[in-house]
Amino acid sequence: MLICSVIGNVWATRKEDGLTGLKFLVVQPVQLEPDNPIQPAFIAVDRIGAGLGDRVIVTKGAPASYIEEKGVPVDALIIGIIDVIGRGENGD
Amino acid sequence: MLICSVIGNVWATRKEDGLTGLKFLVVQPVQLEPDNPIQPAFIAVDRIGAGLGDRVIVTKGAPASYIEEKGVPVDALIIGIIDVIGRGENGD
Amino acid sequence: MLICSVIGNVWATRKEDGLTGLKFLVVQPVQLEPDNPIQPAFIAVDRIGAGLGDRVIVTKGAPASYIEEKGVPVDALIIGIIDVIGRGENGD
Amino acid sequence: MLICSVIGNVWATRKEDGLTGLKFLVVQPVQLEPDNPIQPAFIAVDRIGAGLGDRVIVTKGAPASYIEEKGVPVDALIIGIIDVIGRGENGD
Amino acid sequence: MLICSVIGNVWATRKEDGLTGLKFLVVQPVQLEPDNPIQPAFIAVDRIGAGLGDRVIVTKGAPASYIEEKGVPVDALIIGIIDVIGRGENGD
Repeated sequence: MLICSVIGNVWATRKEDGLTGLKFLVVQPVQLEPDNPIQPAFIAVDRIGAGLGDRVIVTKGAPASYIEEKGVPVDALIIGIIDVIGRGENGD
Repeated sequence: MLICSVIGNVWATRKEDGLTGLKFLVVQPVQLEPDNPIQPAFIAVDRIGAGLGDRVIVTKGAPASYIEEKGVPVDALIIGIIDVIGRGENGD
Repeated sequence: MLICSVIGNVWATRKEDGLTGLKFLVVQPVQLEPDNPIQPAFIAVDRIGAGLGDRVIVTKGAPASYIEEKGVPVDALIIGIIDVIGRGENGD
Repeated sequence: MLICSVIGNVWATRKEDGLTGLKFLVVQPVQLEPDNPIQPAFIAVDRIGAGLGDRVIVTKGAPASYIEEKGVPVDALIIGIIDVIGRGENGD
Repeated sequence: MLICSVIGNVWATRKEDGLTGLKFLVVQPVQLEPDNPIQPAFIAVDRIGAGLGDRVIVTKGAPASYIEEKGVPVDALIIGIIDVIGRGENGD
């Protein structure tokens, strides 16, 4: 999973079926430390209440689509809001 | 999901089975802002009426193939037409 | 899906089960225009009669494996032979 | 699968459902030899007791999610702790 | 699928369940010609008897995991040993 910062929002009225009600955020993949960008920002689904500035764990690809039984056409999902991350035993 | 601009069309008469009737567009992945290209253009399926110049949300990989129960051999799908996107709370 | 040119052939007698009879071609991903290479050539399955020099649409990843019910261990499939592709409304 | 070194830990209290109890580690993809970094560090699930400094085999994408029948929304899994790896017949 | 050369071996005693008995090799993705490296070496499963120095076809991602009905947590599989590959009609 990627380490990302939440940096923005996106609104889209016209969408594929089955996406209604999902929240889409703009996330920026970052290095472990310092948290410099490592690739361009992209869009991920959030169902756990992530907010701007949060550092989050993002799952990409098919596993991001398992949020419903039959699969949803999304390829990025915020799966955790990071409390502590870092090098070494204690994550710092 | 990638942020892309719709830049062109593609026609292909000879195709794999199960693709008849699908519309294929050329999309260009772009940065959040400014919308400079970040990787080469590729081809995505459109089922929501995206048009040239639209900024769209594109899902890649297996989740793009869920448009039919048994899976269709496509790996990119336009899932939303962007109204507003940007940094910060209000998407601007 | 990637825009590719068909540039060569590959023969492999010893193969995983379930691949007998499949045709493998060497394809070169190219830019929309001009059609310069954008990444190294790779191998894709062809079931629609693509030939050397054809410009084709290639699906990668799991959706390329749907050519049989239970999935075949291939990750790239030629899904269309391009008639016309380009920028703008008419594909040119 | 990628060759990685385990370099850190990550804690996330707020998570997607179905992830409780999974251990997340920070892993650094490295070259075969010398073990220089080849891409930015990312987060992988560990169920086999990998520790800091271990060199491990990491599976990415959908196969990493097969740890439960219905699939779990994770895209990286440590599948082995490397004893010996290298060029040539004896792995050294 | 990628064109790779088999360059080494890897041993891992401690592994995820379901991987016992699988042979893991180190493979190096190469250009079509000359066969220069195009990205770092990685690890792939071999079930067809590939050996050091062989040029092989490697499938990545979920299709590599279809070697058992329920899916195995591996993301790279050697699917063929290349006899001849090259540009043009005759693969040379």
